[in-house]
Amino acid sequence: MTTDTFDSRLSDFKAYLKTMKGYEEAIGLMYWDMRTGAPRKGIATRSEAVGVLSGELFKMSVSDKMGDMLDYFSEKEQFERLDRVDRKIVTETKKEYDRSKKIPPQTYQDYVVLTSQAEAVWEDAKEASDYAAFQPYLEKIVATNLEFIELWGYEKHKYNTLLDMYEPGMTVEKLDQVFGALREKVVPLLAAIQASPHKPNTQFLKQTFEKEKQKQFSLFILKEMGYDFEAGRLDETVHPFATGLNPGDVRITTRYLLDDVNSALFGTIHEGGHALYEQNISSDLIGTPLCTGTSMGIHESQSRFWENMIGRSRGFWSRYYGDLQKQYPGQFDQVTAEEFYRASNEVKPSLIRIEADELTYNLHIMVRYEIEKALFSGAARVADLPEVWNEKYKEYLGVTPSNNGEGVLQDVHWAGGAFGYFPSYALGNMYAAQFTRTLRRELPNYDQLISSGSLIPIKEWLSDKIYRYGKLLSPNEIIKEVTGEELNPDYLVQYFHEKFGDIYKL
Amino acid sequence: MTTDTFDSRLSDFKAYLKTMKGYEEAIGLMYWDMRTGAPRKGIATRSEAVGVLSGELFKMSVSDKMGDMLDYFSEKEQFERLDRVDRKIVTETKKEYDRSKKIPPQTYQDYVVLTSQAEAVWEDAKEASDYAAFQPYLEKIVATNLEFIELWGYEKHKYNTLLDMYEPGMTVEKLDQVFGALREKVVPLLAAIQASPHKPNTQFLKQTFEKEKQKQFSLFILKEMGYDFEAGRLDETVHPFATGLNPGDVRITTRYLLDDVNSALFGTIHEGGHALYEQNISSDLIGTPLCTGTSMGIHESQSRFWENMIGRSRGFWSRYYGDLQKQYPGQFDQVTAEEFYRASNEVKPSLIRIEADELTYNLHIMVRYEIEKALFSGAARVADLPEVWNEKYKEYLGVTPSNNGEGVLQDVHWAGGAFGYFPSYALGNMYAAQFTRTLRRELPNYDQLISSGSLIPIKEWLSDKIYRYGKLLSPNEIIKEVTGEELNPDYLVQYFHEKFGDIYKL
Repeated sequence: MTTDTFDSRLSDFKAYLKTMKGYEEAIGLMYWDMRTGAPRKGIATRSEAVGVLSGELFKMSVSDKMGDMLDYFSEKEQFERLDRVDRKIVTETKKEYDRSKKIPPQTYQDYVVLTSQAEAVWEDAKEASDYAAFQPYLEKIVATNLEFIELWGYEKHKYNTLLDMYEPGMTVEKLDQVFGALREKVVPLLAAIQASPHKPNTQFLKQTFEKEKQKQFSLFILKEMGYDFEAGRLDETVHPFATGLNPGDVRITTRYLLDDVNSALFGTIHEGGHALYEQNISSDLIGTPLCTGTSMGIHESQSRFWENMIGRSRGFWSRYYGDLQKQYPGQFDQVTAEEFYRASNEVKPSLIRIEADELTYNLHIMVRYEIEKALFSGAARVADLPEVWNEKYKEYLGVTPSNNGEGVLQDVHWAGGAFGYFPSYALGNMYAAQFTRTLRRELPNYDQLISSGSLIPIKEWLSDKIYRYGKLLSPNEIIKEVTGEELNPDYLVQYFHEKFGDIYKL
Repeated sequence: MTTDTFDSRLSDFKAYLKTMKGYEEAIGLMYWDMRTGAPRKGIATRSEAVGVLSGELFKMSVSDKMGDMLDYFSEKEQFERLDRVDRKIVTETKKEYDRSKKIPPQTYQDYVVLTSQAEAVWEDAKEASDYAAFQPYLEKIVATNLEFIELWGYEKHKYNTLLDMYEPGMTVEKLDQVFGALREKVVPLLAAIQASPHKPNTQFLKQTFEKEKQKQFSLFILKEMGYDFEAGRLDETVHPFATGLNPGDVRITTRYLLDDVNSALFGTIHEGGHALYEQNISSDLIGTPLCTGTSMGIHESQSRFWENMIGRSRGFWSRYYGDLQKQYPGQFDQVTAEEFYRASNEVKPSLIRIEADELTYNLHIMVRYEIEKALFSGAARVADLPEVWNEKYKEYLGVTPSNNGEGVLQDVHWAGGAFGYFPSYALGNMYAAQFTRTLRRELPNYDQLISSGSLIPIKEWLSDKIYRYGKLLSPNEIIKEVTGEELNPDYLVQYFHEKFGDIYKL
């Protein structure tokens, strides 16, 4: 550094962060490619290349240079000279730096190897419903996470430290409250739905639907949502995802089931919601660590909002059902828009989270939340999980897995060490309902916009209130600034009562 | 380094080189993606990310650590303990290192900016046929290359140093000899062809051919050649290319012209030839700098071999013409295989290199070679190029450009500073003919293999003799070990006389 001034150090710092973003973009593209169309025989070498770049990126994130820069800009004198965006960049980067630095490099490296082995073991264990094969790995993963928590520190509950990684500021206290309130209302509602004689007919959803036609219709709906195809593309994968390489390149993938008209469509709308978020982050934030969604929960609120509040609404189908009928000539002649709407909202307790309906989905999450909380408080041991899992499923959903493959082994998250992630899904549902409530207030013709297929004003409202900020605002700041209050589960409850009370004539 | 032994230093060195290969793979994928389907709005940020990784890779290649490792392994004591592959890795890496280290970083960086600007200026200048706009950039590029040559050193002719970058060991002396011999025979042959009354009819090549059908046929032929689709894929681009990310992931691209049955097909076979080379490099070389083709000339020999010696042979069309007719029902009913074969081998002097036939292509190259040689000996000035170009085209090909856009400005190479590259194309043709001669000797049923569509034994012979070595053998070693003699232009001359003497009944 020749001129050791504030300005030159700031531009150095930003160039360093931009370099890191360059690595992230490369790694993101390499993953996207491996999941969409990379030739099979190149995967082993590719995985090593991803490992190389990820390792270099990690080194940069904990380098002495990074430490020096963060020390400098965290000092009061310098910090106060920074503008709002740069302050947030410093605090976010420092948070990550501190977290990474506290783990001894060898411990971290062993953990990376452990989780990568565990994911492979889990895949076979799930297939064979063999919990015993997976258990020792899971025990080590939990033990390592407990070690990490000791190093990172925690307040009140060890699990809080893990929650904070995916939903900054979220705590057991808060989750107990909102999940408790939610469960209290969802369980009796579910019972009433199950007792209702007015069940939707869903048979017509299962016919044969050409892949190309499904694709065309998905593309049409994405366009209606305002997904920008000059800043993205749609490809096929086994496990659908959205990935934001930069706001001008946000890709989504989907999977077409030939015997199901809804699976790819709602999957695409869901990933499209994630993508709208990433496409509409302010260009000022490009090349900074703020150029991403603020939390998993807020991100999920957008995928859920577009999938459920928009895509599974009566207004949506009053507008688009004619297009769907035209897309599959003869296949829906005997089905009304109202019947299609009701079928697409069938509520039915089931064993598998990713196949769950909008209402019971939250119960699947609560089971996982309770288990994770118990694991990290010491109230449950890894060895007990199959039993605990089955009991909770019986209690919350009234169903019992016939084996561990469709029970405790169904999700990959724990094999990867992602404890604290699951709550994001249910938080997303609650945030989405709370945003919807505000949207209705601020766009008084909200329902009419949907039923007339004018979705762009809705996308623009969300961009203006949420998307453009990226990580500049915390999840809690977002929800408070947009809706005027803290996270409140009542809006989701109310939404459920209105929607399902009507569909099931309760 | 804890144990400072030979073995641990060697494994350090290899890990370092593998890391560099990881970067190369990432950069290669990013380019492929930008040229095949990356969304338009992400390109600016993507280009910056490519710049970031390229810069880091360059830093690694000239780092003190690299210098130390190369010093250590270049010392006689250590060098002699290395096996054959590792010795070659050290000498190749040292050659690159020395070359890069001799250029002052600022000079190099300025040059990167200059050529990148020049490429943009060239694009407009070509469009507007405005040589004056491009001339000052070209002057600076030539001047900088002359500076580089002074820093790098040279033997006999300054241009030799540039030739060596693309074709290690190639010299003006050698090229004068082989190009002289080639030209001496090609010019009268061309005259005889032009005087022949037996011209092929080519009208039927220009009809309308559906893109999807062209694609299917291209994929079919690639499969016949032994291109491994589990280690590659075919996509669309404006400028076709092949890119080997690793031997398990070698991608090719093509461009479909709807009014031309041959353009995409022969383009795909050409890139397929490049790809066969990269797919069949020995897996022992993965992760080392030897895991690539040995030179541009040998690489081009493979694309040319598959395109011309195989794809434009009578035997090939005696086998595959029926498939082509079936692929385009009704469009070739009145055309025989022999007529199609002759049409696909029409010889006709033209202005544009990339549209040239197999015979005159070499004359296009010789024009460029003479000009480059003169530029770097001082015999020609950049200001004179349009005039020199037009004179040479008149002299070598008997045609005169009507403007500089279709003349001296037609190729991008000089804007990018790639002087010394053009000869590779003609070298490729000569190597290909010389390999073919040996192939015929060693596979006595060579012609029958082609006419029966058994191309795999040919691919395997080439893999065994050429492909698997990657960069382990130099181009000169390859040609001598495979054919038993040095590069000899007579084989190409002989091939031309046989092929075109027959087609044009000379």
